[in-house]
Amino acid sequence: MAKLSPVDFTAVTLEGRFWPERLETVLAKTIPSQFEQMVKHNIIESLDLPKPVPPLTFPRNHHNFTTQVFWDSDVGKWIEAASYALSHRRDKDIEDKIDMVVEKLALAQLDDGYLNCWYLGREPEKRWTNLRDNHELYCAGHMLEGAVAYFQTTGRRKLLDIMLRYVDHMIVRFGRGENQIRGYCGHQEIELALLKLYAVTHEKKHLDLARYFIDERGALPHYFDKEAIARGDDPKKFWAKTYEYNQSHKPVREQDEVVGHAVRAMYMYAAMADIAAETGDAALKSACEKLWHDVTEKRMYVTAGLGPSATNEGFTSPYDLPNETAYAETCASVALIFWAKRMLDLDCDSAYADILELSLFNGTLSGLSRDGVHYFYANPLESDGNHQRWTWHPCPCCTMNVSRLVASVGNYFYSRNSDTIAVHLYGSNTASIKLDGTNVTLKQTADYPWSGKISLEVNPEIKTEFTLKLRVPGWAKGAKVKINGKNFGHRAVMERGYAAIRRAWKMGDIVAIDFPMPVERIYAHPRVRQDVGRVALKRGPLVFCVEGADNPGVDLSMVSLVADKPVKALLDEGLFGGTMRLWAPALMSDQSEWAGKLYQSDPKAAKKTTLTALPYYLWCNRGSNRMLVWVPET
Amino acid sequence: MAKLSPVDFTAVTLEGRFWPERLETVLAKTIPSQFEQMVKHNIIESLDLPKPVPPLTFPRNHHNFTTQVFWDSDVGKWIEAASYALSHRRDKDIEDKIDMVVEKLALAQLDDGYLNCWYLGREPEKRWTNLRDNHELYCAGHMLEGAVAYFQTTGRRKLLDIMLRYVDHMIVRFGRGENQIRGYCGHQEIELALLKLYAVTHEKKHLDLARYFIDERGALPHYFDKEAIARGDDPKKFWAKTYEYNQSHKPVREQDEVVGHAVRAMYMYAAMADIAAETGDAALKSACEKLWHDVTEKRMYVTAGLGPSATNEGFTSPYDLPNETAYAETCASVALIFWAKRMLDLDCDSAYADILELSLFNGTLSGLSRDGVHYFYANPLESDGNHQRWTWHPCPCCTMNVSRLVASVGNYFYSRNSDTIAVHLYGSNTASIKLDGTNVTLKQTADYPWSGKISLEVNPEIKTEFTLKLRVPGWAKGAKVKINGKNFGHRAVMERGYAAIRRAWKMGDIVAIDFPMPVERIYAHPRVRQDVGRVALKRGPLVFCVEGADNPGVDLSMVSLVADKPVKALLDEGLFGGTMRLWAPALMSDQSEWAGKLYQSDPKAAKKTTLTALPYYLWCNRGSNRMLVWVPET
Repeated sequence: MAKLSPVDFTAVTLEGRFWPERLETVLAKTIPSQFEQMVKHNIIESLDLPKPVPPLTFPRNHHNFTTQVFWDSDVGKWIEAASYALSHRRDKDIEDKIDMVVEKLALAQLDDGYLNCWYLGREPEKRWTNLRDNHELYCAGHMLEGAVAYFQTTGRRKLLDIMLRYVDHMIVRFGRGENQIRGYCGHQEIELALLKLYAVTHEKKHLDLARYFIDERGALPHYFDKEAIARGDDPKKFWAKTYEYNQSHKPVREQDEVVGHAVRAMYMYAAMADIAAETGDAALKSACEKLWHDVTEKRMYVTAGLGPSATNEGFTSPYDLPNETAYAETCASVALIFWAKRMLDLDCDSAYADILELSLFNGTLSGLSRDGVHYFYANPLESDGNHQRWTWHPCPCCTMNVSRLVASVGNYFYSRNSDTIAVHLYGSNTASIKLDGTNVTLKQTADYPWSGKISLEVNPEIKTEFTLKLRVPGWAKGAKVKINGKNFGHRAVMERGYAAIRRAWKMGDIVAIDFPMPVERIYAHPRVRQDVGRVALKRGPLVFCVEGADNPGVDLSMVSLVADKPVKALLDEGLFGGTMRLWAPALMSDQSEWAGKLYQSDPKAAKKTTLTALPYYLWCNRGSNRMLVWVPET
Repeated sequence: MAKLSPVDFTAVTLEGRFWPERLETVLAKTIPSQFEQMVKHNIIESLDLPKPVPPLTFPRNHHNFTTQVFWDSDVGKWIEAASYALSHRRDKDIEDKIDMVVEKLALAQLDDGYLNCWYLGREPEKRWTNLRDNHELYCAGHMLEGAVAYFQTTGRRKLLDIMLRYVDHMIVRFGRGENQIRGYCGHQEIELALLKLYAVTHEKKHLDLARYFIDERGALPHYFDKEAIARGDDPKKFWAKTYEYNQSHKPVREQDEVVGHAVRAMYMYAAMADIAAETGDAALKSACEKLWHDVTEKRMYVTAGLGPSATNEGFTSPYDLPNETAYAETCASVALIFWAKRMLDLDCDSAYADILELSLFNGTLSGLSRDGVHYFYANPLESDGNHQRWTWHPCPCCTMNVSRLVASVGNYFYSRNSDTIAVHLYGSNTASIKLDGTNVTLKQTADYPWSGKISLEVNPEIKTEFTLKLRVPGWAKGAKVKINGKNFGHRAVMERGYAAIRRAWKMGDIVAIDFPMPVERIYAHPRVRQDVGRVALKRGPLVFCVEGADNPGVDLSMVSLVADKPVKALLDEGLFGGTMRLWAPALMSDQSEWAGKLYQSDPKAAKKTTLTALPYYLWCNRGSNRMLVWVPET
């Protein structure tokens, strides 16, 4: 099968109750509040040049750098998130704010195209001298993504033109030529941004620059060594101690273990998959596949959270997945979705879509509160009640990452090629998809993720033969498909987890899909020592958790679920606008049996109780309280 | 009951196979090799003054201090350990080495009594300016303990006299008077050492100085603040961040949670208990009791290891007891024994003796290898095979702590008062104990800890009425006692876990004790999240572990013990000179069932197998390999 191309957010109108609520919240609450926060924290002001950027809001940390170097990226990501949200509903006030920011950027940009407000305002002579730590290309990447998104939604190209000039400057400055910097960014991001640009411009130079950054990474002599020496620093004193931190420890095609900072890793892998798709680079694709297996089979939380450790904001050893101290940064789950979608477009294997959906409905959605103005940076799988959502963060990367993902969720429903439409995600929406022969309007109707019953109306402009590929989720056992009321499932050809239906489709054909959604008990690999003797509850794509707010009078540190007993699922229309809840038979240890004892040999007396669970992504929307995903099982 | 007094190591001759092997190993291997290591690492040379102390062997660490400031304490602890071992068998070579060291100390001591070789050799003008970090009084404490022990074993008092002069200097320098330093040591130790001195001298000034240090600790304005300012440092920049680290965050009588550095805490509590015993200070005793409950009911590993975290070498939050990363420093388990013995002498409650014995046979003995020249600093309860014993350490505190404890184990068998003998520990030995009316020779015969059958021959010089208190260990259910062949257990009065037998004892009376020793399955409090779904095996005082060396062909990361099945115990005479081993029915998950899967909902197929366990303290004597104490249970 020819590889697939994305169907982007501009072609997909989300309907029903689930996603429109999130999109409206992002547009009406999140985007305006994020702008206010950026004003309050001097981030917007920092774009006003040539006057010096404001004094440090947060002190330099123990690594002697400040999160202020990220500020351009925060602005860029906000523009990107806002642009996606505007495709849901245009909003003059937000657009005016973006245009105002664009004016500032236009004024700040140097004649040679360079545009990084931290360096321009503070130490312009030092630009491009610390790629390892100071995030210049990272900031450029996010601004570039913002520029592309704003252009896609509004057609306005002023910011895109600014960024095209900046990219031209990079093309001059970076490369293997005599007077060029033979380097790359310590925080990958520019690579995937250049691929997004390439998808709009189709200019080979944009693809080439991304390839250069990917190909050069990890080459010896190591660029970050050379750069540190040139700065007068000792490269051995790199605060992160290892170049695994930024995945430059070896050339990317030789990498087969997922190491270091989780977000950097995921952004890089996404770019690698993009380049593999554009160029047919088999070594890149193969590296992506090895890395995919490594991360999803040894290093991923059941919520698709990534990176157990706060120390390196990233990965540790295989099967090390502590729950209470899980870092599992929202950004990393978002970035996993980027990567998964690109892998999916390469091979249309539902294994990728399963992880994409898992990350979307769990580790990613958890990062944004119901009210749209509170966030999680880390997404632990257990809490003693000390975790809480915050309104802003010294490093606000996750705020805009979750809003841009939610606002652009339309990107992840479909892919296409000349005669194929692949349906990856389910949920009410109307999509307009161009095949070679015709335009097809697809209309999904579903109360997803609460129900697995989906109606898909297929409306080609004219009767046309093409293949409709329907993802059968890994969790959906006994899926049924009917076409125009007749069973079809048994005649569908299964291709890597997709039911492929080739026929001459005509206006008004109805595909009815039924994915059974029983509550599943999920167990972790025995090597995950933190989950031994524990079970997680899952229904469809949603991982559930037990939270104090739903279990008054139950000490959640003393409970266990009873094995093999049925768990009830019921849609609670009154909770958070309609939410599935689970009721599970459980036992609660008697505290008095343990009074004064830390260890004992006698079996513990335990009282019967019932635990109520709700989707993990909704936790901590009713204040801080105790929570667990992995519940002991008796 | 009047409080008890210790019966010290000089009065107890250890017999049988267990302890004499350890004592002989310490005397013949450990003590000489430790001296060699101290020569090799310039520690002995550093006592030669006035020439400057040798260059730093190990670089200053990130807190900007060097372990070299501890060197006097290492020498003192070595003298102490050697002195105890010499009571087992005198050895001229070792005594000559001690006397040589004493000559160096005599030459180094200033006329005013001051004696700290680090300061004298490097920056004498700075003495007593950084009590918080630089361990001067801590070093003095250890040298003092060495001096007392050497005097007790050999009667030689040159070192004792040196240290008496040093203590007199401290009495002048420290206190609440006008020209005195109103401070105390950052690392508690001097306090308990002064109590040991007081037990020999009965001079009130020695008790008073210890009381001053204990009473002053945590008083406001905080001494370490004042001291830091006087040095020109910012007290807020204390590298450990909190005075909880050294338990000076509040006055000791107000402390009810065990916090901070574990060894400092235990040394302090031991001194507090000592002072409570000497002075009847009810507030101190009450604080000790609260702290005892807190640590043993919320913060102690099943091996009696203390302090889960390497970061502060100490305590974290209640019930936080990670196994693989357990710090559980050998020194902390040793120090817990010190404290437990003092609590035991206050109240003769077997709860204290149970913990004392648990620590002795598990968290403490594990610190010394079979060959006597390898050590553990940290005592994890699980290993992926990356842990190994070492021959020396930049901070060799644990080496001499475990040797001094093993060599002085005779201290922990008995206590006495005018008409009571309390038997705390079991194992073959002959003890000579003075009551008011008579001397009693006790002769225990037992293959302890392998067997719970004990014969105790009671030999008073003349027929005398007194109370013999026999500890009934918490693990011993269904204990039986016979006197001269007749059942007596039912007539014994149980007093806080001790069977009290009052009668007119005569030469040759035989008390036969039988403590059943079935294998127990031990479960942790449900709040210990790391032990959920896991079981530990215990027999008598010994905690067992499963180690790779005993389980070839079994993947210890994929096993679980089968609940409710009997576990066999058998003495293996061929292993480590005779060792109990356990055989337990188990299941091993099939790796192929998990190939490519990190999570799954289907029950896992598992194969039957048998796990072999050996006493925890013996692990890692056959090279590094995988090990677990807490085994998943199915």
